[in-house]
Amino acid sequence: MSESEKSPTQNIYDNEEFFCGYSRLPRSVDGLDAAPEWPVLRAWLPDLHACEVLDLGCGFGWFCRWARRHGAAHVLGIDVSARMLARAAADTDDPAITYTRADMEQLELPSGSFGLAYSSLALHYVKNLDRLISVVHRSLAPGGHLVFSVEHPIFTAPAEPGWSTTSSGRKIWPVDNYLEEGPRSTDWLAKGVIKQHRTLASYINMLLRGGFALRHVEEWGPTQEQIAARPNWADERQRPPFLLVAACR
Amino acid sequence: MSESEKSPTQNIYDNEEFFCGYSRLPRSVDGLDAAPEWPVLRAWLPDLHACEVLDLGCGFGWFCRWARRHGAAHVLGIDVSARMLARAAADTDDPAITYTRADMEQLELPSGSFGLAYSSLALHYVKNLDRLISVVHRSLAPGGHLVFSVEHPIFTAPAEPGWSTTSSGRKIWPVDNYLEEGPRSTDWLAKGVIKQHRTLASYINMLLRGGFALRHVEEWGPTQEQIAARPNWADERQRPPFLLVAACR
Repeated sequence: MSESEKSPTQNIYDNEEFFCGYSRLPRSVDGLDAAPEWPVLRAWLPDLHACEVLDLGCGFGWFCRWARRHGAAHVLGIDVSARMLARAAADTDDPAITYTRADMEQLELPSGSFGLAYSSLALHYVKNLDRLISVVHRSLAPGGHLVFSVEHPIFTAPAEPGWSTTSSGRKIWPVDNYLEEGPRSTDWLAKGVIKQHRTLASYINMLLRGGFALRHVEEWGPTQEQIAARPNWADERQRPPFLLVAACR
Repeated sequence: MSESEKSPTQNIYDNEEFFCGYSRLPRSVDGLDAAPEWPVLRAWLPDLHACEVLDLGCGFGWFCRWARRHGAAHVLGIDVSARMLARAAADTDDPAITYTRADMEQLELPSGSFGLAYSSLALHYVKNLDRLISVVHRSLAPGGHLVFSVEHPIFTAPAEPGWSTTSSGRKIWPVDNYLEEGPRSTDWLAKGVIKQHRTLASYINMLLRGGFALRHVEEWGPTQEQIAARPNWADERQRPPFLLVAACR
């Protein structure tokens, strides 16, 4: 195991600049309904009535509280950020929500416990995702569901991400390095945020190797209705910003 | 159904200019071993001993003959190009290979017959791929395999495909229109070759809807050994040219 594999996940969410910027994002202020990909993820969720739910990278706890309002028996929210968990804990007095600080690189979970493992835009920070997928698979009850989103590999691949305009006036996303998996450093809310680029095939093959059956894959872009309401989202259809996946044990 | 959906597949392979150009490609002259993605596809094939094999878009018949040399009981090669089938037929006198001219948009196949359906770089010409996937699924025996390659969605998406160089000197592939599925006209070997762009998720979801279980997905690029032998292939790792998939009924 190399040094970089042994080192813990970068905990950028506890960085002052990042945390302040993140706290002002619409999805941080207004929750799930401010996340345009949420309707797709929501449609893939199982019936949560009496369900044990796991949220990997729970952040401010929006999904944990939503799951409880929709019948979950208990929700375990995991995050590496002490600041985010502190705010999540302050936002609820529900005893059936447990917030636990843990690094997803080293996470241990009880076996056969959960009906749903959910994760929103967190797994692209994980270096040893193969290990985490195995841990999550074991933690699910038979028939249990995994529903997650990550930044799309087309989005994470480039050495120099960002729109550019061709000589013929087309706005394009400059893909390079797609097949070179590994860390990407970007300046998003703070300088030097490290995300792990992996190919779409790698995500799928990890799930298959981990024993999951795939249910749905979506390369998410805004609908025409969403663009009508938010015209500045139109470019997101040129290349998908998010990859959404549903699988089951 | 729109007019474009009713019209038959463009039969570009019988176009004089295209056919002559295609006939000179390494994979046309030297067969499977000249196709750099072939080792991956070959590794995914089931044992062909006594197997009934279907080849969708068989072209010059290289795979049909290979399958027979590796134990297949019978091979049915389907293609829309009369010229390619004529050469395929001229290249073998094996009575256990049957070449049939058919449009994959309207293909009918016997049920439960095949142990393997194979297709190399042909399905991206098919408009109604959902229909074809269903037909192929029915035509497989239980446990039967589907192994195919198509041009990768990142490769087919752009309105103006082709490498370009950024102001910082990086060679990039200009992605746009990724989420806009449908025909793309490119000038490859001949002008106005029509291929169908669809997202990677669409390929996967079609297979899942069609009843297939996924086995492997690969976004193919050359290995370092292949690049050492052919340095001009190095760019293909910036963005994958091919998508390879193995699934089973």
